[in-house]
Amino acid sequence: MSEHQIIFKPENRTVSAPAGLSLMEVASRAGIHINASCGGEGVCGRCRVELLSGQLRSESGPGTFFTTEEYAKGFRLACQCFVEGPAEINIPPESRADASLYAQAEEHEAITLDTLNPLVRNLTVELTPPTEGDNLADYDRLVLTLDQNHNLAWPQLELAALLEMPTTLRENGFSARATLFEAPNQPARILELSSTQAAQPLYAAAVDIGTTTVWARLIDLNKGQPGPARGDLNGQISFGEDVISRIVFSGKGDGLARLRERITANINQLLDLLLTEAGLSRNSLALIVTAGNTTMSHLFAGLTPQNIRLGPYVPAAATWPFLKAAELGLNVRSSTPLLIFPSVSSYVGGDIVAGVLASGLYKQPELTLFIDVGTNGEIVVGNQDWMTCAACSAGPAFEGGGVKFGMRAAPGAVDQFYYNRADRRHTLAVIGGPGEKPIGICGSGLINIVAELFLAGVLDQRGKFVLQAAPNLIRQGEDGVEYLLRPQAETGLDRDLVLTEIDIENLIRAKGAMYSGYQTLLESVGLTMNNLERVIIGGGFGKSLNLANAIAIGLLPELPIEKFAYIGNSSLTGATLAALSRSLWETAGTIKDGLTNFELSETPSYMDYYMASQFLPHTQSDLFPRTLARVRGEAAS
Amino acid sequence: MSEHQIIFKPENRTVSAPAGLSLMEVASRAGIHINASCGGEGVCGRCRVELLSGQLRSESGPGTFFTTEEYAKGFRLACQCFVEGPAEINIPPESRADASLYAQAEEHEAITLDTLNPLVRNLTVELTPPTEGDNLADYDRLVLTLDQNHNLAWPQLELAALLEMPTTLRENGFSARATLFEAPNQPARILELSSTQAAQPLYAAAVDIGTTTVWARLIDLNKGQPGPARGDLNGQISFGEDVISRIVFSGKGDGLARLRERITANINQLLDLLLTEAGLSRNSLALIVTAGNTTMSHLFAGLTPQNIRLGPYVPAAATWPFLKAAELGLNVRSSTPLLIFPSVSSYVGGDIVAGVLASGLYKQPELTLFIDVGTNGEIVVGNQDWMTCAACSAGPAFEGGGVKFGMRAAPGAVDQFYYNRADRRHTLAVIGGPGEKPIGICGSGLINIVAELFLAGVLDQRGKFVLQAAPNLIRQGEDGVEYLLRPQAETGLDRDLVLTEIDIENLIRAKGAMYSGYQTLLESVGLTMNNLERVIIGGGFGKSLNLANAIAIGLLPELPIEKFAYIGNSSLTGATLAALSRSLWETAGTIKDGLTNFELSETPSYMDYYMASQFLPHTQSDLFPRTLARVRGEAAS
Repeated sequence: MSEHQIIFKPENRTVSAPAGLSLMEVASRAGIHINASCGGEGVCGRCRVELLSGQLRSESGPGTFFTTEEYAKGFRLACQCFVEGPAEINIPPESRADASLYAQAEEHEAITLDTLNPLVRNLTVELTPPTEGDNLADYDRLVLTLDQNHNLAWPQLELAALLEMPTTLRENGFSARATLFEAPNQPARILELSSTQAAQPLYAAAVDIGTTTVWARLIDLNKGQPGPARGDLNGQISFGEDVISRIVFSGKGDGLARLRERITANINQLLDLLLTEAGLSRNSLALIVTAGNTTMSHLFAGLTPQNIRLGPYVPAAATWPFLKAAELGLNVRSSTPLLIFPSVSSYVGGDIVAGVLASGLYKQPELTLFIDVGTNGEIVVGNQDWMTCAACSAGPAFEGGGVKFGMRAAPGAVDQFYYNRADRRHTLAVIGGPGEKPIGICGSGLINIVAELFLAGVLDQRGKFVLQAAPNLIRQGEDGVEYLLRPQAETGLDRDLVLTEIDIENLIRAKGAMYSGYQTLLESVGLTMNNLERVIIGGGFGKSLNLANAIAIGLLPELPIEKFAYIGNSSLTGATLAALSRSLWETAGTIKDGLTNFELSETPSYMDYYMASQFLPHTQSDLFPRTLARVRGEAAS
Repeated sequence: MSEHQIIFKPENRTVSAPAGLSLMEVASRAGIHINASCGGEGVCGRCRVELLSGQLRSESGPGTFFTTEEYAKGFRLACQCFVEGPAEINIPPESRADASLYAQAEEHEAITLDTLNPLVRNLTVELTPPTEGDNLADYDRLVLTLDQNHNLAWPQLELAALLEMPTTLRENGFSARATLFEAPNQPARILELSSTQAAQPLYAAAVDIGTTTVWARLIDLNKGQPGPARGDLNGQISFGEDVISRIVFSGKGDGLARLRERITANINQLLDLLLTEAGLSRNSLALIVTAGNTTMSHLFAGLTPQNIRLGPYVPAAATWPFLKAAELGLNVRSSTPLLIFPSVSSYVGGDIVAGVLASGLYKQPELTLFIDVGTNGEIVVGNQDWMTCAACSAGPAFEGGGVKFGMRAAPGAVDQFYYNRADRRHTLAVIGGPGEKPIGICGSGLINIVAELFLAGVLDQRGKFVLQAAPNLIRQGEDGVEYLLRPQAETGLDRDLVLTEIDIENLIRAKGAMYSGYQTLLESVGLTMNNLERVIIGGGFGKSLNLANAIAIGLLPELPIEKFAYIGNSSLTGATLAALSRSLWETAGTIKDGLTNFELSETPSYMDYYMASQFLPHTQSDLFPRTLARVRGEAAS
């Protein structure tokens, strides 16, 4: 097959690619990220690229995603274009995501630890040295001593530990430091036998495998001290932006293996970075704990997630057998154990179990709502006595999908927005600093814009623009009525940055799905919003969320602000806690078992609640009295 | 470093080798075996080679191992010569061992199996298929079913089985055949999940890792049927012929790794051969059981055996942790478990525990002596109620060491010998068939020669030749008095084949060490030879042993012939039995624990018995009345 030179702008990166390969795949091979919310199915239109010169075979023409004019100018969908000769391609900013934000960001979270009792610990074992009258073998002597003096019957000695045993014992007067791993329903394992003389770093790594981002941190198990977190874009994104498109991709050819390779490479890179920063070697890592949604955990293990999206929606694994991290391709000692957080169901995953662990919901008396907002939104309601959970398919609006200029929270994204009723003008803030030109709108930005416009009367309760409220900014665009956020000249785009009524419809659908989820879950246990004593927001999305605005649009229930708490990357925090405490890892299992999964789609009232929620903030005005008073100008925010 | 061409004759095999490399190592790299009883220490003299042309740097001159004349002719020790230019080398027959005998040989043993209950078995598991109201994950469903219906709590699911689980379950109506491994003190392990539809071969491999030879067989676990055994020379032989020289070698540089690689390659080759012969794939192998002496088991695991030969003689492992065969480099599925037979002590190894298992000694009322004759001789005395064991260092005479023309039982070895008193002539038989010219004497051959000469009065009780009994064959040789077995012209040698008085001294020391071992062990429990009801001979050596001759020289006690039994490769048989029966594997542990190890060297009476044994057959004539009657010509054999 003939090879052709493809040049990607603005990097000017040149790659050689065989005829017939999709441009999406060529970019992926060149290490250039192009958005692909739908997994390369040609249905999301977010992989727009511009053919500057040369030729491509395109499977889709003008229509859904671009006008005849745009098509003539060279706009194409990268996933629907195939190499047939040399070509020069421009990738516009809105078709990219900037990974640097995630790589540089750092979180500081409070880890509230009840008891330091890590799953891996060092145990000094003192053996009676052998004599002529007592020449029991080293291993047998060790097993006997562990049984008699440490109450450890038949621990599993890993091969690496076995091989270092004779020398270690003799260099230490028949003492040794045994690195011991003890998990429920497992024999104790001795991972390493080392000198009692030298200081021995003992670290775990906690990893949050998110659909969009992957976060990891090291934890000093000797001190009980978690280190800073490092994150990166999940490398699987080029194969699809949400779990469904990943599942679809995993079912094609070697898709599963490729997805697995990507996430393994991600984690290895993060671990390398963290270890380098901490001045540690891989051998210091004695435990890996991962938390992710059900699909991410499957893909990491290389286990097919196909049945997650086929009725009756059965994951291959909710709890996980004992595995070793090296078996899954992580560059750690062969003995290092891997714990994967258990899931509740196909759509309530280990990240939520970890989040509930991190939130403390499971041990507190107050009736609490725990939510993780996203394309797949997860909801937990309960307290120390009972817990129920549900997943609701909110759609991709919170993550920039289904929104004309939607994007992830990366540089160039509008995330803050203020509307001034007096002069009918707005100001906006863009991620990336003052010089950064806007190129799109991230999820929290969308909420802020819609809330401000609604509170100012520029949007009505149906989510339609009120022309007379801002006649200079509201206009008829190519997709219907739109609101001008920034003219082209003030953006990093080749056209005006606008918000359309279709975007708002999508956001209303998304927030309504979440809100009606809370209502249905509460109703299932005979309660209402008024019974809620706490609302905890976990997950990456909540970080930049303006609570008042999220209430204003009806995403969050209208409760006093002090009842809300944002606990950051609760999935990573939960994984960290489990690494630090064997009892908290056991608690994770208890939480998983205690979370009654509720299928919203099987509940008739969910659809009623959903329909009623398709309004700003809600059709039922008694649920949002203060918000409506603000709209009427009765109370200042 | 410069490379030189080294040509080995008679194969004409040419290899390129760097200057400075020993000729022994060059030959090893070329795949040509040269004897090295001492492990390349330059002290055994069994690696004689002939420099035909070119140059070698030799570290030893004429003296101990060759005359000035021989040295001038080009004779050198391969281990003491180093490459310094191109050279042509001849390897004479006595410096080789013929591996083909072992590769071609086949054993047929009766496996007496009490109960077919293999350590690995197939279990059909029927799950309730999931429904919308019951969408428990596959793995959780499997764990629940195994617990509820099969009384298996928290089995370990191997990664390979996990990954094949979702598809297997759905292709089989939520049934599956679980390949289950259950060993004591271990969680049950599911090695594989396969279709219940197709026939599924399920095999174990039993492996006997001997110091000299390695034997293996496949066992059909579905039918409870062991297949034929295949053997090969232990590839470690080039690094030393006995356990002590291997231990020494393992302590030098990467010696341990090289020894491990050799035995791993040996076993992989045997498994490949067996699988090919049986038309099976590697995936059929669900279990590997090995039995070997303590040193061989250590070397196979890559575990240092150094402390076996350093006081207080403590092996690194007597029992072994759970290991997987692939971890030790065997080419089998990653999930295939490996069981290593437990040892009693540094010198009473897993081969003896397996041998006792195979012998049935442990469950029979008769007082039984079980012996494995070799450089390291092992002795077990006992019955169903008690067992005691000892190792005695017999020296290498039984395996051809310390004997001028000693060699292993390979083609060219004299193994049968008959002396005719009438014409004062002898006949002898050589391994390898009628055309084979003698080049040496194997252990059983040595016993037969000495016994026949002794019974004929050619040797006296002190092991000295009686000149007048065979004046034409007894003469003064370079090493003292010798007996001419064959003149040079009738041999494959460049000199006469003789037996020296020194050879006989070494044999007397060896047989005396064994016999005084039986006496000391029996005495330790207040018994004597007369109490013995059975004598069982295990190990490879016994195969060609002439019982009457072994009694005549005092190696075996003088008991009625019907009390003796030879049970072949008892180590391999024991490993086979353990693979076939979980309870017999547990019995192996019981045997190991029940074998009281007795240190002969710490018993003062052992030395007395040993001194008394340095006679043919023994100084104490009442122990061998019938043998002495034969010598006097009173009874025909």
